Order: sequence, then structure tokens, then C-alpha cells
Amino acid sequence: MSGHLYGVGVGPGDPELLTLKAARIIAAAPVIAYPKPELGPSMARTIAADLIADTAVEIPMPTPYRAGERATEVYDRFEPVISEHLEQDQDVVVLCEGDPLFYGSFLYLLERLQGRFPVTVVPGVSAPQACAAQACRPLVWGDVSFSIIPCTLPEDILREKITASESLGLIKVGRHLEKVKDLLSELGRLDQALLVSRASQPEATVEPLKTAESAPYFAMILVSAP
Amino acid sequence: MSGHLYGVGVGPGDPELLTLKAARIIAAAPVIAYPKPELGPSMARTIAADLIADTAVEIPMPTPYRAGERATEVYDRFEPVISEHLEQDQDVVVLCEGDPLFYGSFLYLLERLQGRFPVTVVPGVSAPQACAAQACRPLVWGDVSFSIIPCTLPEDILREKITASESLGLIKVGRHLEKVKDLLSELGRLDQALLVSRASQPEATVEPLKTAESAPYFAMILVSAP
Repeated sequence: MSGHLYGVGVGPGDPELLTLKAARIIAAAPVIAYPKPELGPSMARTIAADLIADTAVEIPMPTPYRAGERATEVYDRFEPVISEHLEQDQDVVVLCEGDPLFYGSFLYLLERLQGRFPVTVVPGVSAPQACAAQACRPLVWGDVSFSIIPCTLPEDILREKITASESLGLIKVGRHLEKVKDLLSELGRLDQALLVSRASQPEATVEPLKTAESAPYFAMILVSAP
Repeated sequence: MSGHLYGVGVGPGDPELLTLKAARIIAAAPVIAYPKPELGPSMARTIAADLIADTAVEIPMPTPYRAGERATEVYDRFEPVISEHLEQDQDVVVLCEGDPLFYGSFLYLLERLQGRFPVTVVPGVSAPQACAAQACRPLVWGDVSFSIIPCTLPEDILREKITASESLGLIKVGRHLEKVKDLLSELGRLDQALLVSRASQPEATVEPLKTAESAPYFAMILVSAP
């Protein structure tokens, strides 16, 4: 006998974009873990806050989102904490912004715990779909292909990938804004590009990329197929 | 004054994967429209069935999923039906499998009604995320790019697109199964490929693509980045 590990997507930000399944599993969870920046609140916990039981044990995991190599150290440290609850037959629910398996840090726990404990992943609404809904514009259709490309890639690789793409979403924008604007302009695709920030949240914004002067790290650029 | 048009994603199949927002809006809807194959039940309606009010007016829209050119005729026919309700100050909720703007037929209504009536899109859990959850395998991570490619594309374009992709999901498999198996084998990526059918539903299956002998049209092939 052991507890069950749940990776639960809490969606893009609006607490109403949790699924019924996520809401049920979170409300019943005896132990809840979530990533948390070193400073400030956990976005995933904030989204699910109204559902978490007063009696739940909480495990905030301080996660350095932008430095991949250190994430493994964080999860090496939290793996035994979570294992201990599972070994004591307690279910553990890990809250994940968006979807757990789509650019999610849940993969670090999955690779450490899968096989040793039963695991269920509850998929969530992801950023590309939330951004398209915010902009009220189709993401992709018919026989068109769709690509998600991180703006953190080197410029030559980014150029190559955008050139090979039809409809696309560019993620991790932040300080790469000017580089990406220049590239899309060079490739004749700047006019179709929108910058969407904080999709599904009250402070959401949608603007033509052409006139955007800054972008948060978690903003997304949507470019329709030509 | 006019009614409000809602495009509501109902997710991949499990009724519990509707969002809280979708559930609220569907339950309150005076008029509900949904795509429906010529024969048999509407998948989108089946997913949302328990939420639809007894008093709701229902508008099934017989949709030829596989023949793009005829879809425009279908929606030309249903646009005035939906407009009439909106003009009479009745909200209309259009149910969409998965997400409304991600390969969804909602775009046909959006392009016909946007600007004339207020429109809200409620994003839903999409097939790639549901398939990854079913397989319990990361879809994409870190600085890796992700592509969705329809198997309906000609072989040379498909080869080019797969070659340019890292993590990818191949959609609309059906009769293209052997063509895609051969291509992935040629590109040395067959061993990492999984075929996922009916993700999130009781009859879901996950199998190595290598040994798969048939696939429904709505199955998806997941290939991890090398």
C-alpha cells in the first residue's frame, strides 16, 4: 500500500479554468506541493487557493524557474519529502501552472517517483489556448501545422525554426522581445503577430507585437500562418 | 442589446475535464449549438450532456469534419440561425471538442459573427495535453520546441516538417498510419513514438507506434525530442 501521486494542471491563471477533476482532487488532498519562487507567492497555489483544505499539509518547493541546472537540485531535495508521505499511504497532489507535462516542472518529480508509486496526471488548460482565447483569434486550423518555440534559443536557430513554421507561439519572451521583433520583421511576419500577457487574468493584455515595448517572461507571441 | 456568443471548449472526452467556467456557462445557456456527424451522436454534446438544462434550445450542426470546403457551406447555413437567437438577446453557447481555437470548427462561426456580436472563448484542455497525461510522459520541456503536424500532409512536406521538429504530436492519423511509421523509421525516431487513442476516456489506449496496426482518425502520435 502506498499513496498516489497526482500531477494536477491548474490552468493559465483564472481559477475558473481549473477542470472539475482538478478541483475534486485538490479539495480532497491531504498533502499539496507546489513550485514557489524564492520571493513572493506561488502562482499555482494562488490559482487553487480557494479549494485547498484547511487541514492539508503544504509543501512549497522554491524553484529557480530560469536556471535549468539548479532545478534538479531542488527536486533532489524534495523527492524524499514527497516519498515519505507516499510511503505513509498519503496521496500527494502537485499543483502545476497550465498543464503538468507541457513545459512543466512536474517532469522532475515524475522521473524521480514514476515506477515506485502510482501516478496520475490531470491535464490542464495551457497557455497557447488561453492566449488565443484572450485574443479571440484562431490558433491553428485544418491541415496547418503549429509550433511552440522558446525565444531563449540562439538567433540563428530561432530564425530557422520560425522559417519552418506555419502557425506559431513564441514563449519565454521577456528580454528577447527586440530580437524576436527583428526576426519576424525580417521574415515578413511581424504584422500578423500579437503579444499576449497574463491571459485569462484580470490584468490580461493583447497588443500588436509591432508596437510592444516590453514583455514579461511569461508573455506569449502568437503568429498566424501566412 | 444582443445576446453573447460563447465558444466553449469541453475538453478531450472525460466530462470531468471540463473547466469550472465551461460548466457554469453551459448550465446557464438558453441556446446550445454543437457540431454533429451526419450519423451518430455529437461528441461535444455527449461530453457536456449532464450540464445542459432541460429547457435549453439545441442546435445540432451536421458537420463534415474531413472535407474542409463543405464546412463553409454548413456554417453559412447555421450563421443566420445563431444570429437570430443573438439578435433576440439570447446567449448562444457553442460546444467545441477540446479547445475552440485549436483545430476547432468554431473558427467558422467566429469569422461570421465576430464584430457583430460580443464573443467570449472559454479555452479547454486540448488533445496533446490529454494524450501526454494518458501516457504519463512529458510532452516538451525547457528550451525544446514543440510541433503539431497533421498526417494528412503530402509525404515530402511531412518528412521536411518532422525533420525540423524536436518534440512533436502527429494528428489526424487514421489511414496515414503506415506512411508515418515508415517516415519516423527512416528518420530514426520510430522507437520514441507512442500511439494514443481516446485519451481521457474509459476506452483509452497507449501503445508503441512500432507495433500498432491501425489507428482511428482522432488518434495522436507523440514523439519525444531526441
